[in-house]
Amino acid sequence: MPLSPDQIAEIEAARATPRPTLRAVSEGMEAHLYRANPVLDHGFVRVIDYMGDDSAIVQAARVSYGAGTKHVQNDEGLIRYLMRHWHSTPFEMCEVKLHVKLPVFVARQWIRHRTANVNEYSARYSILDREFYIPEPGQLAAQSTVNNQGRGEVLSGAESARVLDMLKQDAATSYDHYEQMLSQEGQQGLARELARMNLPMNIYTQWYWKTDLHNLFHFLRLRADAHAQFEIRVYAEEIARVTKDWVPLAYAAFEDYRMGGVTLSAKAIAVLKRLLNGENVEQGDSGMSKGEWREFLEVWG
Amino acid sequence: MPLSPDQIAEIEAARATPRPTLRAVSEGMEAHLYRANPVLDHGFVRVIDYMGDDSAIVQAARVSYGAGTKHVQNDEGLIRYLMRHWHSTPFEMCEVKLHVKLPVFVARQWIRHRTANVNEYSARYSILDREFYIPEPGQLAAQSTVNNQGRGEVLSGAESARVLDMLKQDAATSYDHYEQMLSQEGQQGLARELARMNLPMNIYTQWYWKTDLHNLFHFLRLRADAHAQFEIRVYAEEIARVTKDWVPLAYAAFEDYRMGGVTLSAKAIAVLKRLLNGENVEQGDSGMSKGEWREFLEVWG
Amino acid sequence: MPLSPDQIAEIEAARATPRPTLRAVSEGMEAHLYRANPVLDHGFVRVIDYMGDDSAIVQAARVSYGAGTKHVQNDEGLIRYLMRHWHSTPFEMCEVKLHVKLPVFVARQWIRHRTANVNEYSARYSILDREFYIPEPGQLAAQSTVNNQGRGEVLSGAESARVLDMLKQDAATSYDHYEQMLSQEGQQGLARELARMNLPMNIYTQWYWKTDLHNLFHFLRLRADAHAQFEIRVYAEEIARVTKDWVPLAYAAFEDYRMGGVTLSAKAIAVLKRLLNGENVEQGDSGMSKGEWREFLEVWG
Amino acid sequence: MPLSPDQIAEIEAARATPRPTLRAVSEGMEAHLYRANPVLDHGFVRVIDYMGDDSAIVQAARVSYGAGTKHVQNDEGLIRYLMRHWHSTPFEMCEVKLHVKLPVFVARQWIRHRTANVNEYSARYSILDREFYIPEPGQLAAQSTVNNQGRGEVLSGAESARVLDMLKQDAATSYDHYEQMLSQEGQQGLARELARMNLPMNIYTQWYWKTDLHNLFHFLRLRADAHAQFEIRVYAEEIARVTKDWVPLAYAAFEDYRMGGVTLSAKAIAVLKRLLNGENVEQGDSGMSKGEWREFLEVWG
Repeated sequence: MPLSPDQIAEIEAARATPRPTLRAVSEGMEAHLYRANPVLDHGFVRVIDYMGDDSAIVQAARVSYGAGTKHVQNDEGLIRYLMRHWHSTPFEMCEVKLHVKLPVFVARQWIRHRTANVNEYSARYSILDREFYIPEPGQLAAQSTVNNQGRGEVLSGAESARVLDMLKQDAATSYDHYEQMLSQEGQQGLARELARMNLPMNIYTQWYWKTDLHNLFHFLRLRADAHAQFEIRVYAEEIARVTKDWVPLAYAAFEDYRMGGVTLSAKAIAVLKRLLNGENVEQGDSGMSKGEWREFLEVWG
Repeated sequence: MPLSPDQIAEIEAARATPRPTLRAVSEGMEAHLYRANPVLDHGFVRVIDYMGDDSAIVQAARVSYGAGTKHVQNDEGLIRYLMRHWHSTPFEMCEVKLHVKLPVFVARQWIRHRTANVNEYSARYSILDREFYIPEPGQLAAQSTVNNQGRGEVLSGAESARVLDMLKQDAATSYDHYEQMLSQEGQQGLARELARMNLPMNIYTQWYWKTDLHNLFHFLRLRADAHAQFEIRVYAEEIARVTKDWVPLAYAAFEDYRMGGVTLSAKAIAVLKRLLNGENVEQGDSGMSKGEWREFLEVWG
Repeated sequence: MPLSPDQIAEIEAARATPRPTLRAVSEGMEAHLYRANPVLDHGFVRVIDYMGDDSAIVQAARVSYGAGTKHVQNDEGLIRYLMRHWHSTPFEMCEVKLHVKLPVFVARQWIRHRTANVNEYSARYSILDREFYIPEPGQLAAQSTVNNQGRGEVLSGAESARVLDMLKQDAATSYDHYEQMLSQEGQQGLARELARMNLPMNIYTQWYWKTDLHNLFHFLRLRADAHAQFEIRVYAEEIARVTKDWVPLAYAAFEDYRMGGVTLSAKAIAVLKRLLNGENVEQGDSGMSKGEWREFLEVWG
Repeated sequence: MPLSPDQIAEIEAARATPRPTLRAVSEGMEAHLYRANPVLDHGFVRVIDYMGDDSAIVQAARVSYGAGTKHVQNDEGLIRYLMRHWHSTPFEMCEVKLHVKLPVFVARQWIRHRTANVNEYSARYSILDREFYIPEPGQLAAQSTVNNQGRGEVLSGAESARVLDMLKQDAATSYDHYEQMLSQEGQQGLARELARMNLPMNIYTQWYWKTDLHNLFHFLRLRADAHAQFEIRVYAEEIARVTKDWVPLAYAAFEDYRMGGVTLSAKAIAVLKRLLNGENVEQGDSGMSKGEWREFLEVWG
């Protein structure tokens, strides 16, 4: 997203005058504040505010566990312990507020995470801009033949051109009509709350989104995952990069135990133990279904 | 929404065989179960399940307040007392699950109520039907000139025809293109999760939506209100009718204290007291802004 | 609560070194950070962190309503408008984290507000201190004769002395036994998670409690209210004072519309309109129950 | 808990008259309705109401995934797939309401699960009964020497007798004083909201507790776990038994993937792969801390 000179000036103005505070400060996050990290063709993620840092997690845990935490030598060890044992409340003591610009169909996935505060741009009050997500040709992929919710091969050049053409043309037409419906020149002008229904779901919207670190990690685990749709994953990855700068110790623990971890079923544990004992195990005697076995082999095969 | 013979048969089958239960039963709600109450041109609200009735609210309150509730003579009085004093937890003891078919732009407003459970039809997995909300001409209104988020006059016939024409044509074109993108005849076929972005927001989606009675009342207060957008209000009104049959005592208290009630500010109380004393009060000496004064007069003027 | 010299030194150390930040800063709140505001005999409320200020509320609202908010001349007017119309999401954009020391029976009321993040001192891990809430004689009141959950007359001197004696003695005995159970001198020493069950509910616990401004206002409306139990009300009042310094415009709107406001039922509106018309209205022809009528007269009588 | 004849009669009356319903019915759950399953010395768990069964989970998933679920042959396979892939929303479509009698210190742990609806007996309104949890001698264990929040050896007979003596005596004394404070014979009688603070945390309270199946599973995973305190674990185990009868397929998936499963970190995966390759791995070259290594060996050693 190329920012306008006005927007750049506004961001720089917001960054121009540091003020003294007695609160916990994360240097890594201060470097991100207000700046627009571009995502997709017109989107962005901006950090508007944050509360707490790695030490705030530790501090909250020590309130809970009192003398019980003294034997853990250092902050990193304590944070890893909390993550490993699913002690989530200390991570809830950090909070972040983001300004995100994103296509509507991405917003619809995103909003399913209910434990967040949201202020979205209202198309009842205001007029949406003429900005649509048009994928890069390299992102135009066929329906996966093995996964009902995934992508397969990248489309051929001709097919991709045809798709892009339809997307661009329908976006242009629907937005032209949106403007014509709203127009009050020589006519009454349709209410904004009605005219918006003509717009396709690749139009961009924007919102302020605020959540705590525990719920942010949950969001990242699902949305920065390889199975998430590309168009939301790139937002999650951008937020993950920011989070790493904000709370480096917590993020490292999250990477080790959540993003890089796997959950094994009782059946999978039993199979692994047999394999460790040198036994040979086939799907047929694993107790797992074919689907489970395939997923098991993806990690251990 | 005209149901297909298959759908009617399915509903009648679900209603054909009552089974015995020891749970609280609301006769009023049993009459609604599974039936599709039509809303807008293709939408509906169906009750799929419910938990509790008026007596369940009373029962929960008596657990909380023990002997303290004995002096309230009857269930109706207790329910009114709870509503009047914002004792919300007994109302949370009732739960309802609805199947709703609704346009996407309505779903986007609705989902902002976060304290509910939702399972929405996924356009990543499956293909959406060719069904779009096209307003009745009587609902095509101009932008309000006094309210940034409201409607004003109904559009003239010519203008209305022009708007309907654009809505219908863009819906048809975008859906044709959606199908052409997905098609695998002689081509790879674009992934469903991508093709859907071409669809306008008046396309219908559907979901299961489950919430408790306290949060349902909150939803109804905001969405069955005269200031809510017509297209969500008709859903709220349909749900309100169902709710009235489900928990008649609680609904009557809700109507009296919430839907029909108003909240007065400290300033408005002071003004009313002066008026009751026979004083004459003008906006200028009311302590209220012009906007507040106008809203005050709407009720008391 | 008299702080120990160590605690005072720790607070002063935390306040000694301001650091630069680019975030929104509330000067009023900076003055409170880390300081212990005493409540009851051993309790306190301390602000540990905060996010946002009045301008953050306005900023979020302007994202939502876009051009729609331009006609509101100033921040104060916009904040009052949001509060009046129950637009709660902009208030959710501010967050506060408190460190609270409080008796267990107060904590049990407080925790019923579920929309907050909590890290409580764990008596499974650690040993509780010998600190109990012993009311001031002026707070020892008889059961109300009109209100099942309220207090009536202050106890007479003799009766009050008798009560204080029992409270003090039982606290001392139960804590002595707690220590004797835990002791490992010459015995195995009972597990902390078991020994704690002997402690009475006026013992002090502590927690970190974090919530957003919208939910904080909801908490204050219920707990700073005259009907709340004195022992939680004094905490709410202390938090209200801090909140007023943090977000003065939002707090003023809250005072006018919530704390100082009342909600009228449809029946009460009808009665008030008749009174404004000069009619005489009695309970019998008001449509209200005796309880409602009494509450109505408390405001309007 | 020995039920009184009155209570038994009340339960049997509630079970006497089945009524017809068109809702989903779980035969396994009908058998539990209203019956008190005893827990600890005076506690119980009773099912008061429920919504949905295994087929309701499947039904909600099929709404979400539409044609995408057709390839899964049967309900069991689909439920296992949902559980394995953390698709939690279909499990949220089932709801249960329990009546639980439990000691206050157990209630304080339990209430930390915030995603539930609760109506607790109020000691502001009403007088608590003289019922205290007094552990069985076999449950009186010493503080663990390796785990800050666990139990070690069972206490010796003499020590155990001494502890029981203190618990019983302090319970009796504090309750005697509670009654004396409340008494209005010849005195004013202290307000109930004050007198209750003298009671120790092993006194019993009761509540209605309502939650959805997804959150119930989360509760069970944490509280039916071997690391949970015995006194809450016995409640969780009782609820688990009930849940197994209610939704047998979902419960079996939960047992396999959650209760019997483990989560491996990226480091643990790497170590297991080396072991599967026949390598020898020691803690020193595992990349894990001593604590992690010890926990790893508990499963794989």
